[in-house]
Amino acid sequence: MSNSKNNEAGYYILEPNLLPAYLSTIPNISDHIGNCDDLSITEIGDGNLNYVYKVSSRTDDAKSIIVKQAVPYLRMAGEAWPLGRERMLYEIRALSAHNDLVPQFVPTVIHADEAMSTVVMQCLNEHIILRSGMIEGVEYPNVGSHIGHFLADTLFKTSALSMDSAKRREMMHRFTLNTELCKLTEDFIFKFPFQPHESNYSNPATDRWVEENIHTDERYKTDVLHFKQLFISKAEALLHGDLHSGSVMVNEHETFVIDPEFAFFGPISFDVGKIISNFILCCTAHCERNGGKHYQDWILSQIPVIWNTFESRFLELWSEKTDDSTLSEKSLLSDKGLGDFRTRFLIETLQDAIGFAACSMARRTIGIAGVADIRDIEDVAIRSKLEIANLKLSKHLMQSRSEITDIDALSRTLLDFYSENSLWGKRV
Amino acid sequence: MSNSKNNEAGYYILEPNLLPAYLSTIPNISDHIGNCDDLSITEIGDGNLNYVYKVSSRTDDAKSIIVKQAVPYLRMAGEAWPLGRERMLYEIRALSAHNDLVPQFVPTVIHADEAMSTVVMQCLNEHIILRSGMIEGVEYPNVGSHIGHFLADTLFKTSALSMDSAKRREMMHRFTLNTELCKLTEDFIFKFPFQPHESNYSNPATDRWVEENIHTDERYKTDVLHFKQLFISKAEALLHGDLHSGSVMVNEHETFVIDPEFAFFGPISFDVGKIISNFILCCTAHCERNGGKHYQDWILSQIPVIWNTFESRFLELWSEKTDDSTLSEKSLLSDKGLGDFRTRFLIETLQDAIGFAACSMARRTIGIAGVADIRDIEDVAIRSKLEIANLKLSKHLMQSRSEITDIDALSRTLLDFYSENSLWGKRV
Repeated sequence: MSNSKNNEAGYYILEPNLLPAYLSTIPNISDHIGNCDDLSITEIGDGNLNYVYKVSSRTDDAKSIIVKQAVPYLRMAGEAWPLGRERMLYEIRALSAHNDLVPQFVPTVIHADEAMSTVVMQCLNEHIILRSGMIEGVEYPNVGSHIGHFLADTLFKTSALSMDSAKRREMMHRFTLNTELCKLTEDFIFKFPFQPHESNYSNPATDRWVEENIHTDERYKTDVLHFKQLFISKAEALLHGDLHSGSVMVNEHETFVIDPEFAFFGPISFDVGKIISNFILCCTAHCERNGGKHYQDWILSQIPVIWNTFESRFLELWSEKTDDSTLSEKSLLSDKGLGDFRTRFLIETLQDAIGFAACSMARRTIGIAGVADIRDIEDVAIRSKLEIANLKLSKHLMQSRSEITDIDALSRTLLDFYSENSLWGKRV
Repeated sequence: MSNSKNNEAGYYILEPNLLPAYLSTIPNISDHIGNCDDLSITEIGDGNLNYVYKVSSRTDDAKSIIVKQAVPYLRMAGEAWPLGRERMLYEIRALSAHNDLVPQFVPTVIHADEAMSTVVMQCLNEHIILRSGMIEGVEYPNVGSHIGHFLADTLFKTSALSMDSAKRREMMHRFTLNTELCKLTEDFIFKFPFQPHESNYSNPATDRWVEENIHTDERYKTDVLHFKQLFISKAEALLHGDLHSGSVMVNEHETFVIDPEFAFFGPISFDVGKIISNFILCCTAHCERNGGKHYQDWILSQIPVIWNTFESRFLELWSEKTDDSTLSEKSLLSDKGLGDFRTRFLIETLQDAIGFAACSMARRTIGIAGVADIRDIEDVAIRSKLEIANLKLSKHLMQSRSEITDIDALSRTLLDFYSENSLWGKRV
């Protein structure tokens, strides 16, 4: 780790030996980690962008916190790939917003330091990354409903359905300049995977299929461009912005959503579609993984749980609104008229979520950042079979999305696809 | 005029007697108005929000400028109605952007002073307000094509079709906090006119029709709400934000667009629809005004001129783009695929423009700020006939917009409506 970028006012890189002194300046930090002179410090890393440390009391491991700092380059690539540490500004702001909106689903922020691009937060000692758990075939009884609840509360409450006009624009203003990470999404989700690009993943059999069935499919690519346009211009609510199964930590009882550094005002359907796509990708993986059909059935059962919880909670929040928000027009429409507007709103959200899920599935298959669910399968032929299945399903969902008007229709579409393409695993 | 709000740092109200000293501090101002000791100062006012002065050399009236200053209250209502003078910040920023993008269609900015909420600009001595000219029945040979050209250049060049991702978000960030004026639009265009509201205009015969045909029409009001949602959440390009025929100054040769204080990032179709609605409202007025069918025909001929110029110029700019912008995906799609995407984009823009025009027509009929084209007609019965005609046409356009897929279809719809409802004036 280098100190060469330490020269900006009020910022220095928190080498492990500097952590105790830094932490000791935080009021009441001893409540969380005891004596700052007696700490155990472990770098755990989030792998890609930042430095992440677990800091614990040497005498009581239950007393632990997480320290996360952004450095002005891409952590996985080193200083040769500069990346503004402003991203931490947006993570801090989104985490604070989520702490206000859904404290039960996000780590508690103990200390946020914009100048140092650092956040100190609750350590989730008893939870694991959802992706890892799902690769192992673990069924989490609450995860679907928790995710649906998280989506509804964070998205409804930061939309014009809930916020008044000025407050919403002021909040939007605090996220509009998250330009670098928005640009990453624009390129790595909506562009590079759909054309020959040096950053793309390569697996010969998959590559051939992609050349013949993705690069040549103008209709599909035009649909992708439509969703890029939505991503760019539909400033609907404060999104998490990167809600995949690696951004969720779980155990049997609890669910936490972490890493909202991609947060900005975008389409509600983007967050919804992205997390659903991660469930689908894992479902395909278990055709060949140990979970088999039994676990695939569980995953597919969770997608309607996510949606139905999201929908019912969203409608509950909507019906509770009085007329002080920008779009909850109780004085304008009758109950019937409002009901129709709500129905239309949610059908459009579902259909757009399916489109975004389709984009995400292709990106996670062809693009640079594949999902471990599939990429960690060593047998190239098996991997390619699953990759092509996910790409076929992406195309199928993109094309049929406008006929899917409720979540049961999505479930049937998925079930039929797995059956027709013999994608059920052995364990039943 | 009071000085009571003069106490903010760097800001004071420019009483006429203070203008010469203020102007003399501007570099090279004598090029525009000669000697600052020998000025003629006339308050011309824009009627509603601000103070506007024409300042001329006493010895050479051709040497004139306009000084426009926002005061921290609504000019027409006085200090009892506070309104942030921040609005001038956005007018200055939008005028500067328009000076860069389409200098031929906007007054030249001579001096912009954000602290003083003041802009000094070219005086349009030889031009009149388009609305006044059209009420008189004057045909301006270039106005339609100029407006189309203005729309295409300002909207395309500030959209993701033209700007790169970061630059676009940075520009958006400079307009996101134009909260007060956005809120005025949300309420006065998309809400109050469609429900009983103290701010609404009243004319007994019209009021009865509105009660029976607007307040009870849930479908129409739900459509209005849909367009409010679009206005709020579709951050597509830098809009003028208030492009009616009172924001356009013309003569036989030239066209200038003024007063962009409502500027913000919104849907392209809003600007397009708003100006079209003003042409339609005036067309209806001339059923009873002196222009008669002859002038109505001219107005209706200008709507396709506006659209066709907008469309062809927009497509020209689009085809000139290399692949450095966010949505001009030359490397992603074939010419055929790109063509389909462009066609879809423009049809959606036209249909949404028709929906926004429908909202605007109702607002300008029922809401507080009616158009002089109709409101200045003294005979209550005649006025009511025209008001109801415009409301019927608003409902008709709203309902039929999804079947209108090109500008000729819009022209036919309008012609049929005027014929079927006997709305042609006498002079042919």
